[in-house]
Amino acid sequence: MPPAKIGPIAGVDLGGTNMQIGVVSLEAKGDGKMLGEAKKKTRAEEGQDAIISRIAEGIVESCAAAKLSLKDLAGVGIGAPGAVDPFQGVVLEAVNLRWANTPLANLLSKRLGGVPVFLDNDVNVALYGEWRMGAAKGENNCLGVWVGTGIGGALILDGKMWYGPLFTAGEIGHTILFPTNPPGHRSLEHNCSRTTVVDRLIRLIESNRKSILPKLAEGDLSKVKSRTVAKAYEAGDELTLEVVNDAADMLGIAISNVVTLLSLPYVVLGGGLTEAIGQPFVDRVEKSCRKFAFPERVKAVKVVESKLMDQAGVYGAAMIARDRLDR
Amino acid sequence: MPPAKIGPIAGVDLGGTNMQIGVVSLEAKGDGKMLGEAKKKTRAEEGQDAIISRIAEGIVESCAAAKLSLKDLAGVGIGAPGAVDPFQGVVLEAVNLRWANTPLANLLSKRLGGVPVFLDNDVNVALYGEWRMGAAKGENNCLGVWVGTGIGGALILDGKMWYGPLFTAGEIGHTILFPTNPPGHRSLEHNCSRTTVVDRLIRLIESNRKSILPKLAEGDLSKVKSRTVAKAYEAGDELTLEVVNDAADMLGIAISNVVTLLSLPYVVLGGGLTEAIGQPFVDRVEKSCRKFAFPERVKAVKVVESKLMDQAGVYGAAMIARDRLDR
Repeated sequence: MPPAKIGPIAGVDLGGTNMQIGVVSLEAKGDGKMLGEAKKKTRAEEGQDAIISRIAEGIVESCAAAKLSLKDLAGVGIGAPGAVDPFQGVVLEAVNLRWANTPLANLLSKRLGGVPVFLDNDVNVALYGEWRMGAAKGENNCLGVWVGTGIGGALILDGKMWYGPLFTAGEIGHTILFPTNPPGHRSLEHNCSRTTVVDRLIRLIESNRKSILPKLAEGDLSKVKSRTVAKAYEAGDELTLEVVNDAADMLGIAISNVVTLLSLPYVVLGGGLTEAIGQPFVDRVEKSCRKFAFPERVKAVKVVESKLMDQAGVYGAAMIARDRLDR
Repeated sequence: MPPAKIGPIAGVDLGGTNMQIGVVSLEAKGDGKMLGEAKKKTRAEEGQDAIISRIAEGIVESCAAAKLSLKDLAGVGIGAPGAVDPFQGVVLEAVNLRWANTPLANLLSKRLGGVPVFLDNDVNVALYGEWRMGAAKGENNCLGVWVGTGIGGALILDGKMWYGPLFTAGEIGHTILFPTNPPGHRSLEHNCSRTTVVDRLIRLIESNRKSILPKLAEGDLSKVKSRTVAKAYEAGDELTLEVVNDAADMLGIAISNVVTLLSLPYVVLGGGLTEAIGQPFVDRVEKSCRKFAFPERVKAVKVVESKLMDQAGVYGAAMIARDRLDR
C-alpha cells in the first residue's frame, strides 16, 4: 500500500510563555518540510478566548507565509502543557495556562471553520516528532526527556505513545530522586532543570566561588540562560563543569530507573539545556545511566540528542495530526 | 463464546532456595482450584540437571496428590528468578540458580514426555496470578511489588504483561532511591527489603536501642524473620515501628515514581514482609505513595495486598500456561 497522501498540516507548540506554529508538508514515512512559520506570545493572563484567538491568528499567518489558506489545511495538531486527554481533545489541567477541562480541540476547530484539530501533551508531541522523523526514528520503545525551565518526559512503548489510563504518563520530572531532601527539593525537576542549575550557580558565585559566568553575563547574573551556561561549560569553567556535570549525573540516574523498570534500550534528550550544551551533556547523562541501569543487558542503553531541536514540538504536533487523520 | 475448557495445569514457583509446585484446575474467567501440591529444596549448587529433575519429580508428586498422571496435564507453567525470555522459554541469567541461557522450557518438557511448558519470570508470574484471579482482577494497568529477601516488581500495561524489548522489565528493586548513598546502599532493595529491615533492626539493637525483638527471638537475633518483625510491629515496639514505617514510606515513594511515570491507578503488594505485617504495612505504603504521586489525578492510586499470598507464583504460573495454551 503506498503511503496515504495528506495535505499540509499546521503544528502548534503551545507553551506557558510563547507559542510556535508551523505549516508543514508530511509524508507517511516520516519526511517533512516546513512551509511557513509564526511565533506569538501566549499571554496566559489574558484568558482562554484570547489565547485561542492568538493560536488561530498564528495558524492563519503561517498559512500566509506558506502561500496557503486555511482551507488548504488537512488538519491541525497542537501540543499543550499539562495533563491532556488526547482522545477527547481536552486540556484537563494546565497550571501555567490557568486552564482546567478546556475542550481546546473543539474550540480551536470552530475558530478555524471546522478544520480537524488534534490535541496532545507538549512533551508527548515532541517525542512523537523525534520518533517519526527525528532522533528516535524506528525506535518503538523509547523514553524522551526534555530539560529546560522544568523537566518533562514521554514514552513510546511497543510502537505507541504511552498515555496511561489517567493520560498523565511521562512525568519523569516529578519523580522523587532525593526522598530525604526538604519539601520542594526532592524531585528530578527540582534538582536538574535549567532553572535549578542556574540558581545553584548563582548561589555558589554569591558565596564567592570563582567563575567566568559573571563576566559572560556582563555582571548581571539574572541574565544567565542556557546559552551562557553552555559557553562557560565549553570554556572549561570549573564551577560550571561541577554543577552541570552533577545535574547530568543525577539525570542519568533518574533515567536509569526508567530503563531498569521498563527494560528500555533508547532515550532521547531534548530541551533548552540539552540543546545549548549538546553532545558533552548527552554523553555524561548516558555514562551515568549505563552505570546504574540493571540488569547487565540494559546497560547498552543509548542516550541520544534531539534532532528536531526546538522544532520538535511543531513537527511532532503536525505528525500526530497526520497519523490520526490517516486512521 | 463460552470459556475454553482446558485440563489441569501444573504451576511451578522456582526460587533460589525452595520450589513450590501445584496442580490446579483453572477456568478462563479466572477461577481456580488447587488439586495437589508439593514442595522441594532447589539446591542450586547441584547444577542444572539435578534441579530440572527435581522440578519434574515435584510435578509427578503433585499429580499423584491430585490423583492424576502426567498425561492428564494440559501444560506446565513455571516462574523462574532472574532475566527470562518468555517467548523462547529460556532463562537468560539467574544469578541465584547459577544459570545463563538455559532453555528451561524445552529441557523440562522433554523430561515430562512432551507436556508443553511455558516459562516466565517469578514476579511476573505472581502478578499475573493476582491480575487474573486475585487482588488485581480486572485491573488492566497495574504494578506489582514483592517485598521479601529482595524486592521484585512486574507490570501489567494495557491488559498485557509488560516485558520490555529486552525482557527484563519490572525491576523496581534495582531502581536508585538514594543516589548519594555509598555503592551497595542506593537501590530500593538495598533500603526496604526484609533483609535490610532486619539488618537495620539488629544493628540498632546492638547499639543499645530498646526493643522486644531479642525476647521474641529467644535471644538469638539471627532468628529474626518477617513473622518476628510483624509480631513486634503489632505489639507496638517503638524501634520496629520506626524502622518498618520508614521502609514503608520509602517504598511508597519508589512506587509513586512508577505511578507518576506511567499514570497508573493500581498497585499490588506481596512478598514475605507484606504478608507478615499485612494491612498496616500496605496502608502506610499507600499513604506515602499518594502523597508523592503526580499530578493530582493519580493521587487516588490504590495500593492493595496480594490475595493469593505465597500461592501467587504457583497459580500465576499455571494461569500463564493456561492463557498461552488458549491462544
